[in-house]
Amino acid sequence: MQAPPRGTVYGTLLNYRGALAALGDAVHKPPYKAPPKAPVLYIKPANTWISDGAPIPVPSDVDALQMGAALGVVIRCTACRVPAESALDYVAGYTVVNDVSVPHDSYYRPSIRLKCRDGFCPISPVIVDRTRVADPDALVVRVFVDGALRQQNTTANLIRSTARLIADITEFMTLSAGDVLLTGVPENAPLARAGQRVAIEIEGVGRLENPLIAEGNVR
Amino acid sequence: MQAPPRGTVYGTLLNYRGALAALGDAVHKPPYKAPPKAPVLYIKPANTWISDGAPIPVPSDVDALQMGAALGVVIRCTACRVPAESALDYVAGYTVVNDVSVPHDSYYRPSIRLKCRDGFCPISPVIVDRTRVADPDALVVRVFVDGALRQQNTTANLIRSTARLIADITEFMTLSAGDVLLTGVPENAPLARAGQRVAIEIEGVGRLENPLIAEGNVR
Repeated sequence: MQAPPRGTVYGTLLNYRGALAALGDAVHKPPYKAPPKAPVLYIKPANTWISDGAPIPVPSDVDALQMGAALGVVIRCTACRVPAESALDYVAGYTVVNDVSVPHDSYYRPSIRLKCRDGFCPISPVIVDRTRVADPDALVVRVFVDGALRQQNTTANLIRSTARLIADITEFMTLSAGDVLLTGVPENAPLARAGQRVAIEIEGVGRLENPLIAEGNVR
Repeated sequence: MQAPPRGTVYGTLLNYRGALAALGDAVHKPPYKAPPKAPVLYIKPANTWISDGAPIPVPSDVDALQMGAALGVVIRCTACRVPAESALDYVAGYTVVNDVSVPHDSYYRPSIRLKCRDGFCPISPVIVDRTRVADPDALVVRVFVDGALRQQNTTANLIRSTARLIADITEFMTLSAGDVLLTGVPENAPLARAGQRVAIEIEGVGRLENPLIAEGNVR
């Protein structure tokens, strides 16, 4: 794993329209009770961070892992109660992230065991300066498993845009330089198994590719 | 806030016998369904870290905050699949932590909004070497609000001892040097309001004292 070059990595739950729609009526029942009124966040701690090309360990008790294609928004400076209109000024740049999960049915506050196993957050080392990304809310996202296109979506389908997300999060907590905000994972995240390779491409931002390897063969 | 001298800070839910007992029958119903079989963790990110003496901001939408007296176990070196018998060898030392929360009824995976507001994790800068703590599972824990004793408990009441917790966590994820593991918060965490001072004492480990200040007066 690479040296920690960053602050906290925050994931955002259910921020794609299709992902929320896929919940159907369940979103009005316990434990959800209602669609999220504020961003629902989780954290990908340092043990999950690996770089481009590094193997994603598949835990021995799991058959396949969900590949979570996510736009990573790298924060440039302290952001506290930032209005959406100026929120992008607080962004250093964008990167490609694979927010890996153990497959699970409930999207209600996923546990550390499901989202935070070792190597569950490949992050591209390439950060594209924000001035080179005209519109972070219009980026095509693609996932390939062993070279085959398995998912395509666009950040135009985000419920909260990048700027709105920064505004809504910094309304209740401060983001700092080096924090990375994942704007969400599209519905129908493809599965991949040990022995396969996954690549995530975000147009204008970059490509991140990692092999999956059975846990015992990594350590 | 102090410079980040540490890795990830993990809290552990419902690790005091009394805290689990206080849930009563609810622990067998949704969303819990059953008592936890593995440690249930959450993360206190860097925006929550403040040092001894620094003010805890009370958010404007909250009346009082829960003071969570916690033993902080500072990890010494990479710990992966560590047996309980040798788990304490992976500990650098112990410290006093206040795991502050917005009061809430459900203990099922508390949200970032409840546990991770700015300044919600005072941590003593003093780390007592592990060789100077004879038994981390027999430490008296006390909470004082404005000088009055409001809570007393002991780490002897932990469901998972410090060593067992390290073993059970590192069975599914790696802990690294500088990570801090909070072994749990006792039931009936006292409330405190803006204008009050809270002190947490752990016998043989130290004392951590912080004032609470209305949010607008901190920034």
